[in-house]
Amino acid sequence: MEPDLQAELIRVAHLLADAARGPALAHFRTAGLVADSKGDGQFDPVTIADRAAERAMRDILAKERPEDAIFGEEYGQTSGTSGLRWVLDPIDGTRGYISGTPTWGVLIAVGHDAGPVYGIIDQPYIGERFAGGFGQAVLTGPMGVTQLTTRAPRALDQAILLSTFPEIGTPAEMQAFQAVSQRVRLTRYGMDCYGYALLAAGQVDLVIEAGLNAYDVQGPIAVITAAGGIVTDWTGRPVHDGGQVLAAANADIHATALAVLQAHQ
Amino acid sequence: MEPDLQAELIRVAHLLADAARGPALAHFRTAGLVADSKGDGQFDPVTIADRAAERAMRDILAKERPEDAIFGEEYGQTSGTSGLRWVLDPIDGTRGYISGTPTWGVLIAVGHDAGPVYGIIDQPYIGERFAGGFGQAVLTGPMGVTQLTTRAPRALDQAILLSTFPEIGTPAEMQAFQAVSQRVRLTRYGMDCYGYALLAAGQVDLVIEAGLNAYDVQGPIAVITAAGGIVTDWTGRPVHDGGQVLAAANADIHATALAVLQAHQ
Repeated sequence: MEPDLQAELIRVAHLLADAARGPALAHFRTAGLVADSKGDGQFDPVTIADRAAERAMRDILAKERPEDAIFGEEYGQTSGTSGLRWVLDPIDGTRGYISGTPTWGVLIAVGHDAGPVYGIIDQPYIGERFAGGFGQAVLTGPMGVTQLTTRAPRALDQAILLSTFPEIGTPAEMQAFQAVSQRVRLTRYGMDCYGYALLAAGQVDLVIEAGLNAYDVQGPIAVITAAGGIVTDWTGRPVHDGGQVLAAANADIHATALAVLQAHQ
Repeated sequence: MEPDLQAELIRVAHLLADAARGPALAHFRTAGLVADSKGDGQFDPVTIADRAAERAMRDILAKERPEDAIFGEEYGQTSGTSGLRWVLDPIDGTRGYISGTPTWGVLIAVGHDAGPVYGIIDQPYIGERFAGGFGQAVLTGPMGVTQLTTRAPRALDQAILLSTFPEIGTPAEMQAFQAVSQRVRLTRYGMDCYGYALLAAGQVDLVIEAGLNAYDVQGPIAVITAAGGIVTDWTGRPVHDGGQVLAAANADIHATALAVLQAHQ
């Protein structure tokens, strides 16, 4: 890709993240927040925030990148002519959001059918932005600006594994996950998309989840890959269209965890 | 307690939290952080941070409140003559700390044998401080200064329940926890002491844990009680000396959850 186009996509991706912060935060930690529809045609506050954040991003794309396609969690597919597509999850981690935990995020990716080339995981409450692609991988947060680099290889029994909830997915998926979990040093739950950010930041070795959509995973794939990690499905194939996700800090621990997952499916 | 003494204890409690932030953050998200002793007389970075943060707080107490007793997680008991005792956990949530999650905290409480009268839960990375006691309950954080108020009563099947890890404690403790978990709307794990802060902030209804020490729970007890909540053990008795903790947003949901816990022990 031309350097000018790369710079343009980076610029627009950060405009989107900037624009989503206000609407995404507007209903965070408000009283009486509930996640389900009220059933009378009204929407709950988290859905209002979700939609407002996606509209804010779509407004920018309509102006800045009108020929690109869009796939957003709230408003679905918009076709384009450039061959590029933006994949947006305005508030990933709704259950974290309604619990007040700063583990949800705004997920942004841009890429082709073959997968994302640049992505952002933004956590507006903490004020942290994890961004990666085109040879860059950067965290901007409370401690300033730092490079994102995933962890060096270590034995599986020294690894830290994250997932969002212990049920994982189907009983078979939970069993395969547990086979890995039983071999690592520490398993922690509850991080939503923030877990992928921590993997990119070199804090943990593995994130394993199931049942993800393209918009849940494309931003993380771009950031983690740029930081030196590997993200595939549980058979080792590309996962940018969603499914069972194995995100790993490096090729060694990816291969080790993949072998355990495959032996238990 | 005299208003002057109350103001003095509040002032010193915040001095302690201020002093702990730097040392507690110094090793957060550093490369190669490991939690266990290296076995050669050297200490790992999280223990170094833990000890440095407690020493910083003890230095202030030696100067400002030399007649008060201290009980700290790292340096144990120091006797006093005033009848007041400071209970300190410089880094609560070590496993969160080593995983890079901003769910650990500096816990500070001051009180008598009968329990804490003022407490702080401080999260230095996010820059959030939850403080409560003497008729005040205040959050100072990224969105400014707000009152802490726990949630109003709601049915158990509408409640959000937090705990740190799904194993909870013994198998019997896990079973009792699961009896509550199966009746709530949403159970989330992984929040460490930050879960108590979210309860005080009105974001969740229940936090249930087991195996806690006095220094794990006294800060949370003070903050939650000041915000309108109730913290007891799983039999409804005071829990400031540690043990099985049931923290609830209000008397109604406390009674409901307590009945379920007691029916399953």
